[in-house]
Amino acid sequence: MADTYKITELTGTSTESLADAIRSGVAKAGETLHGLDWFEVTDIRGHIENGQVEHFQVSLKIGFKLD
Amino acid sequence: MADTYKITELTGTSTESLADAIRSGVAKAGETLHGLDWFEVTDIRGHIENGQVEHFQVSLKIGFKLD
Amino acid sequence: MADTYKITELTGTSTESLADAIRSGVAKAGETLHGLDWFEVTDIRGHIENGQVEHFQVSLKIGFKLD
Amino acid sequence: MADTYKITELTGTSTESLADAIRSGVAKAGETLHGLDWFEVTDIRGHIENGQVEHFQVSLKIGFKLD
Amino acid sequence: MADTYKITELTGTSTESLADAIRSGVAKAGETLHGLDWFEVTDIRGHIENGQVEHFQVSLKIGFKLD
Amino acid sequence: MADTYKITELTGTSTESLADAIRSGVAKAGETLHGLDWFEVTDIRGHIENGQVEHFQVSLKIGFKLD
Amino acid sequence: MADTYKITELTGTSTESLADAIRSGVAKAGETLHGLDWFEVTDIRGHIENGQVEHFQVSLKIGFKLD
Amino acid sequence: MADTYKITELTGTSTESLADAIRSGVAKAGETLHGLDWFEVTDIRGHIENGQVEHFQVSLKIGFKLD
Amino acid sequence: MADTYKITELTGTSTESLADAIRSGVAKAGETLHGLDWFEVTDIRGHIENGQVEHFQVSLKIGFKLD
Amino acid sequence: MADTYKITELTGTSTESLADAIRSGVAKAGETLHGLDWFEVTDIRGHIENGQVEHFQVSLKIGFKLD
Amino acid sequence: MADTYKITELTGTSTESLADAIRSGVAKAGETLHGLDWFEVTDIRGHIENGQVEHFQVSLKIGFKLD
Amino acid sequence: MADTYKITELTGTSTESLADAIRSGVAKAGETLHGLDWFEVTDIRGHIENGQVEHFQVSLKIGFKLD
Repeated sequence: MADTYKITELTGTSTESLADAIRSGVAKAGETLHGLDWFEVTDIRGHIENGQVEHFQVSLKIGFKLD
Repeated sequence: MADTYKITELTGTSTESLADAIRSGVAKAGETLHGLDWFEVTDIRGHIENGQVEHFQVSLKIGFKLD
Repeated sequence: MADTYKITELTGTSTESLADAIRSGVAKAGETLHGLDWFEVTDIRGHIENGQVEHFQVSLKIGFKLD
Repeated sequence: MADTYKITELTGTSTESLADAIRSGVAKAGETLHGLDWFEVTDIRGHIENGQVEHFQVSLKIGFKLD
Repeated sequence: MADTYKITELTGTSTESLADAIRSGVAKAGETLHGLDWFEVTDIRGHIENGQVEHFQVSLKIGFKLD
Repeated sequence: MADTYKITELTGTSTESLADAIRSGVAKAGETLHGLDWFEVTDIRGHIENGQVEHFQVSLKIGFKLD
Repeated sequence: MADTYKITELTGTSTESLADAIRSGVAKAGETLHGLDWFEVTDIRGHIENGQVEHFQVSLKIGFKLD
Repeated sequence: MADTYKITELTGTSTESLADAIRSGVAKAGETLHGLDWFEVTDIRGHIENGQVEHFQVSLKIGFKLD
Repeated sequence: MADTYKITELTGTSTESLADAIRSGVAKAGETLHGLDWFEVTDIRGHIENGQVEHFQVSLKIGFKLD
Repeated sequence: MADTYKITELTGTSTESLADAIRSGVAKAGETLHGLDWFEVTDIRGHIENGQVEHFQVSLKIGFKLD
Repeated sequence: MADTYKITELTGTSTESLADAIRSGVAKAGETLHGLDWFEVTDIRGHIENGQVEHFQVSLKIGFKLD
Repeated sequence: MADTYKITELTGTSTESLADAIRSGVAKAGETLHGLDWFEVTDIRGHIENGQVEHFQVSLKIGFKLD
């Protein structure tokens, strides 16, 4: 049978940068899922406190190969 | 490590209202998932029988914090 | 020949709720069309008078089977 | 000069229904703005607590005529 | 409680056709999930080698009824 | 007066392929409408039974010249 | 019963301007439909001949009140 | 601090053309706001009376530099 | 081999009208490309100076047949 | 310097199937461009003659590595 | 009355990073508005000079609670 | 004749940040094209290896003035 990939959706967060929010979300997914292959950003949001960005929230679709 | 949220997608249904379809889908998710935090409506559809709305179908993305 | 469905587009209105605007539009379509099967909401708008919502306008695509 | 309308964007909330969240947001806008004419829903979200919908958040563009 | 459907997202692949990529992805999902009901195509992509299409990748949302 | 085209929307179905679902929907439209000129795919969905694709549903906008 | 509006979709054309393509499509619709109320532009395209714009094609959704 | 631009949203109207509707909306904004820099069209709609276009409504995002 | 069309993307400008911005961009493309066949508007923007529209910018996809 | 990919856009055509329209467009691009890597479908349209599909038109973005 | 949030739209800029453009825009908004709560990125653009990125422009919707 | 801008599409990559992926793609374009003026991000994706982000891929539309 041809390859099939499952797509899971996560929101990674960071107080530093968008790249760190992506890296953090991908690393968390990698703790329990094997064969992670690609990601796609679907949304960039964040939380504000006292008139300053408190953290960034980057939502991701992450694809991985099913056995 | 920074917080990570997983996003799951459901379709809740109701014969009564859009709000009830959302409540029903969220409550069903809450039976097996902990830490549900937010939802976002992605699609509103429904089924028609005998020329009348039979039920509403509201698709949701639901976010919850990963431990 | 395989089944074919026609899609018609309507805007239903209600002073009460979004669900009633949908029900009203579907019921109106059901007066002249047979075999209505499903609907999909494409737009939610409304009219305001004296600073209050006067009525809701919900646009729908409605699918029905062609004979 | 031809009529010009300004569009403002709000998020109304309700524990009851989507229609109430819209009505609440429009009424709040009507406290300070005159000539409100129409609204359009741009986003439907909400907050979840203890596995149940805590409130609905409906984002609206609201148009009103400039003098 | 009213019916609730879960939506899972997959990418099926095929060297032959878009329909085969869809069939392959759905069949893979059917190995572990019961009550699969509908699918919706969200993305059509593919891989190219030596200037020719090597395989098609069709991403799908697949809905199934929760017990 | 300049040419005007009307756009009608249909869903064609097929158990075989996406192309057949399109051909079937267009042929059905051609039974009652003259001057069909172009189509555009707006949605690709389908029905699943026993864990296999039962049929494909391809929604189309079809344009034809008004006399 | 509350008001219901039907939405029909047309493509108007003009060699002169986008506004004329819209006016032409609306006027054509007005020959056979009563109670036309609003339009919304969904697509702006055109045909090119000998490296020059030959005509503009503006697709419209047109709403009218059902009796 | 780096430059920041505010974006305001308006609907300009005209009985003549889309360009005039845009010009009219921008000129109205320019009566009270300084430093207007760019616009982007977000929606093209209009009102129909007696089967003819009565006026065009062009919605705009307008950007201007904050001091 | 079946026909293949290439799609190029341009932004045409005009101080007069949207139609002139489109005509200008298409004519510029026609200076170096042969077989231009159709265009599609993807974005309408513009520049503002002294509170008035200075020029319109219309982005186009333009299709032409490859030999 | 990190890898850079250029994206070109084409419309492939076929009287047979969507997959053949994609294969045809990719093969045409491969005649003059090296290092083609992936494609993404952006639009599915077609031409109708005598009430039957005459050919399918599939628009593609095709990515290839720059040297 | 239930909580209502107003949404304002800004473009923040930075020569350094996307995160800095967001932080800069939010901080500027925080100088005059109280109760800023969340942001959402709607557009990422930038200016190029001499073949290099001169600055990044990130457009944001920013939500804040109305009293 | 009025100014015309051509739009080219690229994917820049970086192991470091989204800003670096943009800078890299723009710099690569600047090696062969003159008069680069603006960019717009159209897609943010990336590749994952061993459960960690391997590199970021940022797709850009880049505009430059035609002579």
